[in-house]
Amino acid sequence: MSDFAPKYDTLLLRRERSRLYVTLNRPEVKNALNPTLIGELRSVFEVLRDRRDIKVMILRGAGGTFCAGADLKNMEQSFNEPPKPGEKDPIAVNNRQFGTFLELVNTAPQVVVAAVEGYAIAGGFGLLCVSDVAICTEDAGFAMSETAIGIVPAQIAPFVAARIGVPQTRHLALTAARFKGPEAYRLGIAHYLVKDSAALDAKLEEVLKQVDRCAPFANAATKAVVMKVGTEPLSSVLDFAADKFAEARRSPEAAEGLRAFAEKRPPRWAVE
Amino acid sequence: MSDFAPKYDTLLLRRERSRLYVTLNRPEVKNALNPTLIGELRSVFEVLRDRRDIKVMILRGAGGTFCAGADLKNMEQSFNEPPKPGEKDPIAVNNRQFGTFLELVNTAPQVVVAAVEGYAIAGGFGLLCVSDVAICTEDAGFAMSETAIGIVPAQIAPFVAARIGVPQTRHLALTAARFKGPEAYRLGIAHYLVKDSAALDAKLEEVLKQVDRCAPFANAATKAVVMKVGTEPLSSVLDFAADKFAEARRSPEAAEGLRAFAEKRPPRWAVE
Amino acid sequence: MSDFAPKYDTLLLRRERSRLYVTLNRPEVKNALNPTLIGELRSVFEVLRDRRDIKVMILRGAGGTFCAGADLKNMEQSFNEPPKPGEKDPIAVNNRQFGTFLELVNTAPQVVVAAVEGYAIAGGFGLLCVSDVAICTEDAGFAMSETAIGIVPAQIAPFVAARIGVPQTRHLALTAARFKGPEAYRLGIAHYLVKDSAALDAKLEEVLKQVDRCAPFANAATKAVVMKVGTEPLSSVLDFAADKFAEARRSPEAAEGLRAFAEKRPPRWAVE
Repeated sequence: MSDFAPKYDTLLLRRERSRLYVTLNRPEVKNALNPTLIGELRSVFEVLRDRRDIKVMILRGAGGTFCAGADLKNMEQSFNEPPKPGEKDPIAVNNRQFGTFLELVNTAPQVVVAAVEGYAIAGGFGLLCVSDVAICTEDAGFAMSETAIGIVPAQIAPFVAARIGVPQTRHLALTAARFKGPEAYRLGIAHYLVKDSAALDAKLEEVLKQVDRCAPFANAATKAVVMKVGTEPLSSVLDFAADKFAEARRSPEAAEGLRAFAEKRPPRWAVE
Repeated sequence: MSDFAPKYDTLLLRRERSRLYVTLNRPEVKNALNPTLIGELRSVFEVLRDRRDIKVMILRGAGGTFCAGADLKNMEQSFNEPPKPGEKDPIAVNNRQFGTFLELVNTAPQVVVAAVEGYAIAGGFGLLCVSDVAICTEDAGFAMSETAIGIVPAQIAPFVAARIGVPQTRHLALTAARFKGPEAYRLGIAHYLVKDSAALDAKLEEVLKQVDRCAPFANAATKAVVMKVGTEPLSSVLDFAADKFAEARRSPEAAEGLRAFAEKRPPRWAVE
Repeated sequence: MSDFAPKYDTLLLRRERSRLYVTLNRPEVKNALNPTLIGELRSVFEVLRDRRDIKVMILRGAGGTFCAGADLKNMEQSFNEPPKPGEKDPIAVNNRQFGTFLELVNTAPQVVVAAVEGYAIAGGFGLLCVSDVAICTEDAGFAMSETAIGIVPAQIAPFVAARIGVPQTRHLALTAARFKGPEAYRLGIAHYLVKDSAALDAKLEEVLKQVDRCAPFANAATKAVVMKVGTEPLSSVLDFAADKFAEARRSPEAAEGLRAFAEKRPPRWAVE
């Protein structure tokens, strides 16, 4: 079984039963995304891809803020030489890798829960938009701020559009509008809106208990079905879904779930 | 003209002018979906496919509840022998048929109105999500509860995602969250939210009068256009739409509609 | 550089820095869309396609109303002879052109802002739905009214569905429901809801100042990325986005934007 590194430079990991808590840990720069942080977070999701014993992954930022986006100091100092003739522009290659990373998070077999306070800006906003469940505080601040500094929210825009639709994305991206928790909730960026960081802790625990009620294999299969919607014709999504249903139905999980239902008791899952 | 059965075991049918009222009628099990009920409801929609004299179909549940989902007693007792070698798993085949049924409802040429009180859970929630107009009471209860009993909301998930988007479906399906009418309204599952069952009757009648104002052929053509969105490239949807427009424009309906508009009187449609 | 006509019969144009204000100007018929108005508006958007010096286009109606839809008097008097054998029905051909026009507006490189008071009905509602940012007053009235006069909202339905989703479009189109500003805001048709026409002026100015903050080339590139979502597989949207990112990052715009950010001052864009 592939495993996590003993130590990360920019992340804090904590395991509790089937839960993995991951904290972005560059509080001195509001957890801005530099190559080290993206690389470490990618490696965590690569491990998670094969880890059936972890059912839910909680993503949060240190120092009371989620993530302020790309590290602009790093960006300004990078790639200042022109691309070599006949070569793909390294700026494009590097940018494209962030999209690949977001796809990896988006399709993780675990339930990914984002707990957001402080800021979720630009790339940090994109990261929030690939979670399964997002909780945010009322005074949390959001923006697709890229065009206000002359760049393009290139890799995040498709994931934001998948989250809130193309029309709301047009508005946010073309005005670099700043907004708060209630609007994030109204637009469907967040599923739960809470008053402050204490309420965020409480709601997070409540959500995790809800996830505890769900069967781990059934959840992973369900996520695989849902993430296919819109990428294949309906009939092939339904075919795939039928196979996943049969697989789950023949598993010990469904046997336990149906028995527990009949006996009016909570089910006991293999991974708790 | 194909016709309805004189009697159904699990449905009540009532015809009133161009309206067909269909009541799921297994109140002793909260109208749980067993093979008989699904088969009878499918046969009703197969008849409706060719019935231009019926303009609107109203779907409701007996006993003050819409539909509690699959009949789990029936599910636990079915398909307990392993699939035969070289054969498609009969559990998958059977599950896939529910998706075909939901597609049939989703694309009925009539306006399908769901009037929801009590519960709309799992498969019953899926059925609600393929209606054209849904009205629900404030205290109606909803959930994609499948993963909490170890199975997968396989055939309904794509239709739920079409209704409320993939991101809200991820949340509902992976937490088996239970929620009430106001949240169903906020998410766009229901188009109208009403206080109680009496208000549900009143709002239903109001919606049906709105549908009376609309021309029957134009409505069927419009639904055909709208249901193509997202399944074909935009340009081919627009081509199809242009042909439907011309067909409607040359029909006696449009002649009557435009004349009535000019004469400032309500139009008279062939099917009332 | 292609330029606007010196005078239009049905439009008023006003240029102010990088802003183009366009007013539909047939107030005597609530700015109903006749062939002249559609032709003139199309010609404006054809010019805009190549005009990098114009960053934002503001669309509004004269006489306190946005647009009441197709001119039905004109419609009733047109195309009354049957199509010639072997020829495409000219009604379909003419209808299809409206879809081509809406696509042109939808993909304009400028930020298109719709300022809506009075009515936005049928074709006028479709035009609203292809804007990037929409502001509407509380008492503004909206409807997809076509089926109530026996015709089909053929070319607008796909753009409405792109704006608010297929399920809300089914409801609006199949009931010809009339609704007001708060519902337009709730459904995501409008991004801002304001009390009255005076508040509309103020909010419009505020939105335009937000757009001023955004870099013009970055905005056009961002819109091109966002409008590709859903029309191509995700990986090819991300590839395209990466190229646009590199192009923007190597432009003087990003250099100015990053420098201004580091110096904590507002950036100065080439087009203001």
